[in-house]
Amino acid sequence: MNHNGKPNLTTRSIQPENQESPIHFIKKWETPLSYFYRRNHFPYPILNQYNYWLQVIDGQSKKRYIHLTELLAMPTSTLTVPLECAGNKRANFSPKVYGEQWEAGAISQGKWTGVPLRNLLNDTELTMEAQEIVFEGADLGKKPGTEGIVPYKRSLPLEKALHPDTLVAFQYNDQPLSVKHGHPFRLIVPNWYAMASVKWLRKIEIINHRFSGPFQTDDYMYYPNENNDQGEFPVTTLNVNSTIQQPLNYSILNSGTHKVEGIAWTGRGKIKEVQVSFDNGQTWTKANLSRSGDSDYSWIRWSLVREFTNIGEYTILSRAVDSSGRVQPDSPYWNQKGYGYNAVSKVHVKVE
Amino acid sequence: MNHNGKPNLTTRSIQPENQESPIHFIKKWETPLSYFYRRNHFPYPILNQYNYWLQVIDGQSKKRYIHLTELLAMPTSTLTVPLECAGNKRANFSPKVYGEQWEAGAISQGKWTGVPLRNLLNDTELTMEAQEIVFEGADLGKKPGTEGIVPYKRSLPLEKALHPDTLVAFQYNDQPLSVKHGHPFRLIVPNWYAMASVKWLRKIEIINHRFSGPFQTDDYMYYPNENNDQGEFPVTTLNVNSTIQQPLNYSILNSGTHKVEGIAWTGRGKIKEVQVSFDNGQTWTKANLSRSGDSDYSWIRWSLVREFTNIGEYTILSRAVDSSGRVQPDSPYWNQKGYGYNAVSKVHVKVE
Repeated sequence: MNHNGKPNLTTRSIQPENQESPIHFIKKWETPLSYFYRRNHFPYPILNQYNYWLQVIDGQSKKRYIHLTELLAMPTSTLTVPLECAGNKRANFSPKVYGEQWEAGAISQGKWTGVPLRNLLNDTELTMEAQEIVFEGADLGKKPGTEGIVPYKRSLPLEKALHPDTLVAFQYNDQPLSVKHGHPFRLIVPNWYAMASVKWLRKIEIINHRFSGPFQTDDYMYYPNENNDQGEFPVTTLNVNSTIQQPLNYSILNSGTHKVEGIAWTGRGKIKEVQVSFDNGQTWTKANLSRSGDSDYSWIRWSLVREFTNIGEYTILSRAVDSSGRVQPDSPYWNQKGYGYNAVSKVHVKVE
Repeated sequence: MNHNGKPNLTTRSIQPENQESPIHFIKKWETPLSYFYRRNHFPYPILNQYNYWLQVIDGQSKKRYIHLTELLAMPTSTLTVPLECAGNKRANFSPKVYGEQWEAGAISQGKWTGVPLRNLLNDTELTMEAQEIVFEGADLGKKPGTEGIVPYKRSLPLEKALHPDTLVAFQYNDQPLSVKHGHPFRLIVPNWYAMASVKWLRKIEIINHRFSGPFQTDDYMYYPNENNDQGEFPVTTLNVNSTIQQPLNYSILNSGTHKVEGIAWTGRGKIKEVQVSFDNGQTWTKANLSRSGDSDYSWIRWSLVREFTNIGEYTILSRAVDSSGRVQPDSPYWNQKGYGYNAVSKVHVKVE
């Protein structure tokens, strides 16, 4: 950044507070807290001493409490993990869909420190019948289409919940979690869209059946048909994706050499390659990749220097490929609620 | 605003610093400085003691200096004036055009205090031959398509320059002008797009011919044809315009009563009427208008309360009419550089 300019968050909604990260200007592996995007379903919860006790409830409804100080005394993991809102880039869908009109800034990443969830659970709690684990945040409110007051609540299948990298985190970038990002406890679920990383975590419940709830089986579902709800399936892992950070869309450049750069990430394996096109997809060049070294989950940074000798207009595309063989598609996977946008990233520039 | 949410500026470019106001959340007549949009052509100038002396140059190249303290001793005017970037809403043009992709936030207003320019000029300077007045800012740099280093420089026709409300301002909202908004002197040209309100004003030159320069006769010109530069004419007065502030585009509302509200402004006369449509333009209802009382230049605030009983999708339009008879058009006036967008304002909402 420079001493004059502060690229702030972009407000999409005041209540609840939804604000986008200035992603085009983030060049670090660890996004400073002040540039981390904010995504809320409800007003910020008002915390008290109860929130420092995590409730664990087993399949027989037996309750147990774990205090923050107990977590602090346990062995921890630190992982650099991007959190991406499932609605990131929703504004790009056509036909347009309802919901916050996120552009590319509903993603941020940094260093999360916490205790692997599985180390918090006892064998007696994880019975043979256990099927899912439900996570409840302290945030609650009314929700269109649902009766009464509902808390934010999501479940994970057992195998994901017990993955060694699924953390109950209490630090971000070596600082205690901030109140706006889940203080004192936030579930961190690497590779999944961020609706799974429940903030203000207060209750962990092991259940012997499939969980259903408005944030699990109504929202955060892909409904691929425009006119009916058939063929729906849940939003889970991140799609392979990339964002061109610079140059900005529709900018005017001097002729000469310019750096084209951005980030790329995936929820399955690692980013293997990022390809860039300067002729609207006819030919592609591999970008140089730079990895944080810190974590396999981290986004990668990519760049390419190019001489723009000819005056005129260019369409620049970026396309990430992951180690599971997935490639960003030319067209987005349209769905009613606008989740998981990952079509090829595109900017137009004019060289004068 | 609430205690949780701070709707910050949206960065469009870091160097030069271009940042959009969170216009959808501004409910006051006087925008606090921290929410005022920033539009620069060059890096911020580095000021020194010379900048406190205004240079006045007459048609015979005779120079005179006026110090800030002399201005402070003169009778002043205070006016509530909106400044709108000529590129405001450029992102809405289709076909898309190059340049900063401003949404609706390249406009802000507040109280400007200064000395009418005409009171600063002597009769001997304003000869019969005088035709235009040229204003030069302290900001400068390279510009694509122009040789060497150029300062930001614009002219006004004599009658506009000598209008009693054309001010050499030194205060905003009763505070000394901030460095980012033109300290110590900024020209304020009510009713014109803000490229005329030259910041860091250092030189005022009376000329006996028509001024030409890259910010006068190249940029800030309407080029209405896509394939050639014919039919061009300069950007001057504000078009009649309105913005729907709430609800936000593509938001999901509970069924029930909602306030639809916004602002409207014009560069010719006053806003006479704002009409709102809930059926994509088939029928229109007059909104309630609220005027600042402070100034004829101020935007007006409009609102309408409506019961959304039926679940479904709505397209809400707003259309301002001014006292000169101008109405916001259904389609924008497309031009190569994307100036003066003022098509009917539109939001889509879904009631659940």
